Amino acid sequence: MSHSNALYAQSGGVTAVINATACGVIQTARAHADRIDTLFAARNGIIGVLNEDLIDTRHESDADIAALRHTPGGAFGSCRHKLGTLEKDRARYERLVEVFSAHNIRYFFYNGGGDSQDTTHKIAQFSRSLGYEITCIGIPKTIDNDLPLTDCSPGFGSAAKYVATSIREAGLDVASMCRTSTKIFILEVMGRHSGWLAAASGLAAEHEGDAPHLILFPEVPFDRNAFLQRVDDCVKKHGHCAIVVSEGLRNSDGQFISETGLLDAFGHHQLGGVAPIIAQLIKDALGYKYHWALSDYLQRSARHLASHNDVLQAYALGEHAVKLALAGKTAIMPIIVRDASAPYRWHIGEASLSDVANVEIGLPRDFITDDGFGITEKCRTQISPLIQGEDYPPYRNGLPDYVRLKNISVVKKLTALPESIK
Amino acid sequence: MSHSNALYAQSGGVTAVINATACGVIQTARAHADRIDTLFAARNGIIGVLNEDLIDTRHESDADIAALRHTPGGAFGSCRHKLGTLEKDRARYERLVEVFSAHNIRYFFYNGGGDSQDTTHKIAQFSRSLGYEITCIGIPKTIDNDLPLTDCSPGFGSAAKYVATSIREAGLDVASMCRTSTKIFILEVMGRHSGWLAAASGLAAEHEGDAPHLILFPEVPFDRNAFLQRVDDCVKKHGHCAIVVSEGLRNSDGQFISETGLLDAFGHHQLGGVAPIIAQLIKDALGYKYHWALSDYLQRSARHLASHNDVLQAYALGEHAVKLALAGKTAIMPIIVRDASAPYRWHIGEASLSDVANVEIGLPRDFITDDGFGITEKCRTQISPLIQGEDYPPYRNGLPDYVRLKNISVVKKLTALPESIK
Repeated sequence: MSHSNALYAQSGGVTAVINATACGVIQTARAHADRIDTLFAARNGIIGVLNEDLIDTRHESDADIAALRHTPGGAFGSCRHKLGTLEKDRARYERLVEVFSAHNIRYFFYNGGGDSQDTTHKIAQFSRSLGYEITCIGIPKTIDNDLPLTDCSPGFGSAAKYVATSIREAGLDVASMCRTSTKIFILEVMGRHSGWLAAASGLAAEHEGDAPHLILFPEVPFDRNAFLQRVDDCVKKHGHCAIVVSEGLRNSDGQFISETGLLDAFGHHQLGGVAPIIAQLIKDALGYKYHWALSDYLQRSARHLASHNDVLQAYALGEHAVKLALAGKTAIMPIIVRDASAPYRWHIGEASLSDVANVEIGLPRDFITDDGFGITEKCRTQISPLIQGEDYPPYRNGLPDYVRLKNISVVKKLTALPESIK
Repeated sequence: MSHSNALYAQSGGVTAVINATACGVIQTARAHADRIDTLFAARNGIIGVLNEDLIDTRHESDADIAALRHTPGGAFGSCRHKLGTLEKDRARYERLVEVFSAHNIRYFFYNGGGDSQDTTHKIAQFSRSLGYEITCIGIPKTIDNDLPLTDCSPGFGSAAKYVATSIREAGLDVASMCRTSTKIFILEVMGRHSGWLAAASGLAAEHEGDAPHLILFPEVPFDRNAFLQRVDDCVKKHGHCAIVVSEGLRNSDGQFISETGLLDAFGHHQLGGVAPIIAQLIKDALGYKYHWALSDYLQRSARHLASHNDVLQAYALGEHAVKLALAGKTAIMPIIVRDASAPYRWHIGEASLSDVANVEIGLPRDFITDDGFGITEKCRTQISPLIQGEDYPPYRNGLPDYVRLKNISVVKKLTALPESIK
């Protein structure tokens, strides 16, 4: 299969370092031009493959590709689009293979979370069943850190560094103001289904009295009275209380607090965010003045504060994805294998996509303190290495100098995607 | 007045660099130990002076004082407490002079915004009327950038760098996702009464299509229809729309949009934030999926992303405050005087507190484009130099290594503050 082509696509919520993975894929493919003729990228993930909306990465300069390493977001566009089973979505899988075939794509690299690994796995199975020879490699990515087998998921370490830094900084702010003004500060962090990012904020608390004083995890049903008691104790002891709450916080019935309309007598859902609900709860019960912040996309795009280890791993996974493909591996995902925690040592291993697909790893219960409001040493040992090291982007005019690629489309060879399977 | 003492206090909302000013004051005072015996700090601003709650900064090591330069928040505590007129609050002013006198304080440095400069001015007048000899110097600080005469206010440049960086990063994120998911991203920034921070976000938009695509300023009454039209045009052209909204956005009646309960048929005020209101407005009118972020304290405490020029100026103002005091100046505030914009050159000048007190400088109308949704070149020329240069703090365990001072109290010499004037 000399002079065959490859395709790279990004999927799901993007991260501060998914483009570092893209950089690893593209640079490694360019270094193996004897084996990979053209590396295409799909515009907006799998949607771009279905629509034969491909980008020819050969038009991008080496300098621009190198700049991907420090550019957040998804350079080729991503999407939220989960393919169904091979039976249900057969027409779509056929279309994918049709596009692969039309452009002689013999390597497929899909960079995403659990759903994407499942898709990659299905594509590998389906292509094989059709006799179309293609190497399918999944590459991990997700700030949620919920992929199995790998020590961590690229994107998590940088988001973790961001939330821990942010609560440390805002904690110093509220501590300064608490004598006469704000006594409560609440930072809402992402993690609809797992508390990894909420847990990461706990790294900022190294000494008695440090922020965050309390963490609310999705894994621990919200206990209003115990929480309020702890808040009050904290304010009485330290003068203020800095809290991190996961967007995925639920009550004992499993309902998201953000959707409880807890404070609205008319049953209206709030416009978004659990932080303002918790803030108002404290205000009503204890009378303390509050401020709250909701970082949303900022926490997953904050490349200016990326973890160096995260960037190294994101790049290495892209690099090894190509090397594993060229070594004849398929239906696998390169993973991070931890050799030691202090100092952190790791290497790239591999996992079968069949073992990865559709498995989510939540925050282990023994990573949370017995009282449910903090993290254990075991948790700290696991997460701390992932935020180590700084990896600053270059700056121009006082702002991070991020690259925007040309993203020149490949001429289409097929008819448009039929309406029936759009 | 050899062997007299000095007092430094922080006031109002803190910033990422107010401690750099404290560092400048303390290091310069230490360098003039022949003139200033002890430099006290007031705990929690003017409240600490009233309560004779003073800190002896001599107990802090040189290394810890040096670390203030890169530590956000207010190291001695701040407060929101405005003294009234000399007539109305005479008992409080008498108490202040009583505390100064008890500790032989002959230099008073008050680091704050417009209200604090007014307080400093009044203290200078009152002390003189009592015949108590004390040098009173105001030192500027505020992320709102609303102080007169000075080219800018320390704290603004770093907050400006943060908001511009954040919207650039989140803009790349939403651009990646817009094909199948979120099309609207809204970042709410501080500035209850002026749009300087909202304007600063505009620095991120350097090329056609760059975020932010639209800015909503407090100075421009919210025009719902014109805004929605622009949002729709932007989504149709670029696939997405990244918006920055100032917390101080008002409708044509002058009412804060955050308090309009715009979307709540029962007339409930939202729990906080104008961003979710604008987001829901877009969703209802245009149907686009949104995300929004509210940085709150994060934007004014993000020392990890401080502007180098801001840190230099914050330090220099503290340094020169002491030097001006020792040169016999009183009732003044050191200011930043701009000599040139490109490259930025500045020096420290001085302004009379009588010219500074209670004057707020809003964003000039000619800094906003005619359509009301962007910034002009004139604005860019003014603000851009203020965010130039990076000034990274040291890191330990993957997080910024900020100092916490000992803050050892001075033994009180007076009776407690009478209840009547607390």
